[in-house]
Amino acid sequence: MLESDLHAHIRELTAGMSGSFPRVLLGPGDDCAVIRTDSRSVLTVDQVVEGRHFSPGTPIDLVARKAVARSISDLAAMACRPVCALATGLLPSGYRHARELTERLHHWANHWSCPIVGGDIATSPAGTPLSLTVTALGGLREDEPPVTRAGARAGDEVYVTGALGGSLASGRHLAFEPRVADALWLRATLGTDLTSMIDLSDGLGRDGARIAVASGVIVRVDAASLPLHAGTAGWQDAVGDGEDYELLFTVRRSLGSPARSPCGTPVTRVGRVVAVGSDRSTGACVVHLPDGTVIDASEMGWDHA
Amino acid sequence: MLESDLHAHIRELTAGMSGSFPRVLLGPGDDCAVIRTDSRSVLTVDQVVEGRHFSPGTPIDLVARKAVARSISDLAAMACRPVCALATGLLPSGYRHARELTERLHHWANHWSCPIVGGDIATSPAGTPLSLTVTALGGLREDEPPVTRAGARAGDEVYVTGALGGSLASGRHLAFEPRVADALWLRATLGTDLTSMIDLSDGLGRDGARIAVASGVIVRVDAASLPLHAGTAGWQDAVGDGEDYELLFTVRRSLGSPARSPCGTPVTRVGRVVAVGSDRSTGACVVHLPDGTVIDASEMGWDHA
Repeated sequence: MLESDLHAHIRELTAGMSGSFPRVLLGPGDDCAVIRTDSRSVLTVDQVVEGRHFSPGTPIDLVARKAVARSISDLAAMACRPVCALATGLLPSGYRHARELTERLHHWANHWSCPIVGGDIATSPAGTPLSLTVTALGGLREDEPPVTRAGARAGDEVYVTGALGGSLASGRHLAFEPRVADALWLRATLGTDLTSMIDLSDGLGRDGARIAVASGVIVRVDAASLPLHAGTAGWQDAVGDGEDYELLFTVRRSLGSPARSPCGTPVTRVGRVVAVGSDRSTGACVVHLPDGTVIDASEMGWDHA
Repeated sequence: MLESDLHAHIRELTAGMSGSFPRVLLGPGDDCAVIRTDSRSVLTVDQVVEGRHFSPGTPIDLVARKAVARSISDLAAMACRPVCALATGLLPSGYRHARELTERLHHWANHWSCPIVGGDIATSPAGTPLSLTVTALGGLREDEPPVTRAGARAGDEVYVTGALGGSLASGRHLAFEPRVADALWLRATLGTDLTSMIDLSDGLGRDGARIAVASGVIVRVDAASLPLHAGTAGWQDAVGDGEDYELLFTVRRSLGSPARSPCGTPVTRVGRVVAVGSDRSTGACVVHLPDGTVIDASEMGWDHA
């Protein structure tokens, strides 16, 4: 398929975009898109690569969904509203599903109110992996400070949305729901008491350590409190499996537990933030087991080599 | 190299970014970057792929430069100021130059006042092409309407910056200067008389046709007036070679010719916009030869298959 044919297809898909998404002043088709932005914008980019983030033969709809959802999940982690996205595809020569892939990318981006306003297609040699890149832009009003990884303080409670573990084995890593609405509810409910947040892509251990290091604290998790998906073997799966795309966040007051967001998402208290002690010079995520054992889980998740 | 090692390197490279670039409220290292944005933002994304946009063995500095410059050139085409960028790399397994590549990407992005505030690294099987993606965000003030491809009107004069042709053969496609300053000067000088603009990536013929189709006009170019690089064989090279990354633009009054921008860039009148006639139902870019021949050049450039 020639790039010009695909561009014509994209023009069909995006006709009337400004009507549906008034922030889009100029959609795809020019050198750049033009977007009405808030005074602060939030930006992220992620890739999904065949053989790494999805298996060969994965339905195109799920590939597109994951590509968009991963970036939207990053916006959720900052508690901001999606505004728009850009997508690129590196397609192996002879790839026959460019139209369907494009259509599904636009579908999921629109579904999450983050229309794709620009993109690029390139081809790589036959046999090389399909690769997609999605950049997402979100907006923050002037009275909405970003929720980063750096605000956790000793005494804060630690929570997660949803349940954890077994995402890759169950296929949930392809079909998760980015927690945007939950994140916006948390911000609206908690204000500055929502002290830090991250989305769980590499596992609670490693991602928890990211909050801990950025905030200069210890994130202490109680293994017995971790909400597990059915079929997971135990706390290790919740801490180390990765690709949960749930929110891990810290709160300066109690939310109570168990609780649910207005979307029906479970919100579970899983631990507490404690000060870096004399035995540790840096932040870490530690797991307390019921028998009293304490395990440093900071490197139990994925480190993508 | 582990992703966590590269992240540490990126933290070193970007420490103090907010001091150098005050719009960057939160740089790399969290789920998203946070940027102070204008009320309108301009967005583009482009890929460079080994074997397609650069040859195997191209110096890493030039690969990084081209990856950044292509996206900045798209911002220039909208006559807007660079604000920030995001970059991803798909690196073949065992790729040994990730640190240098990252450093040079940041170098060039900073050089063009478009700091890289976020990114992602993934690996692909050994032997697959290196691929980079750069998203760029630019800003427009409320009193600065975007300069699109759609504003050309019959009677406008047609101009290009710089000289054209032979970019791939000469290696200039790796080391061109995005025409941001020239574009801002054109907007400041011409205001709404700068009626349309595009950057020349696929050749004057094809890119001129893009203005023509978007504006519903004919872009008529005089072959004899085309500014050619030394070593090019003739007008065909200027029209069809592609990858010039010069600006093609239309103006509602005369700039005079030849002229230079304050940066010293030549600005040459190369033709005129004429109305779509009774013999054509759609826009096109046509070249008038000295012998009176008229050639439709709308498909003479690159169509990236």
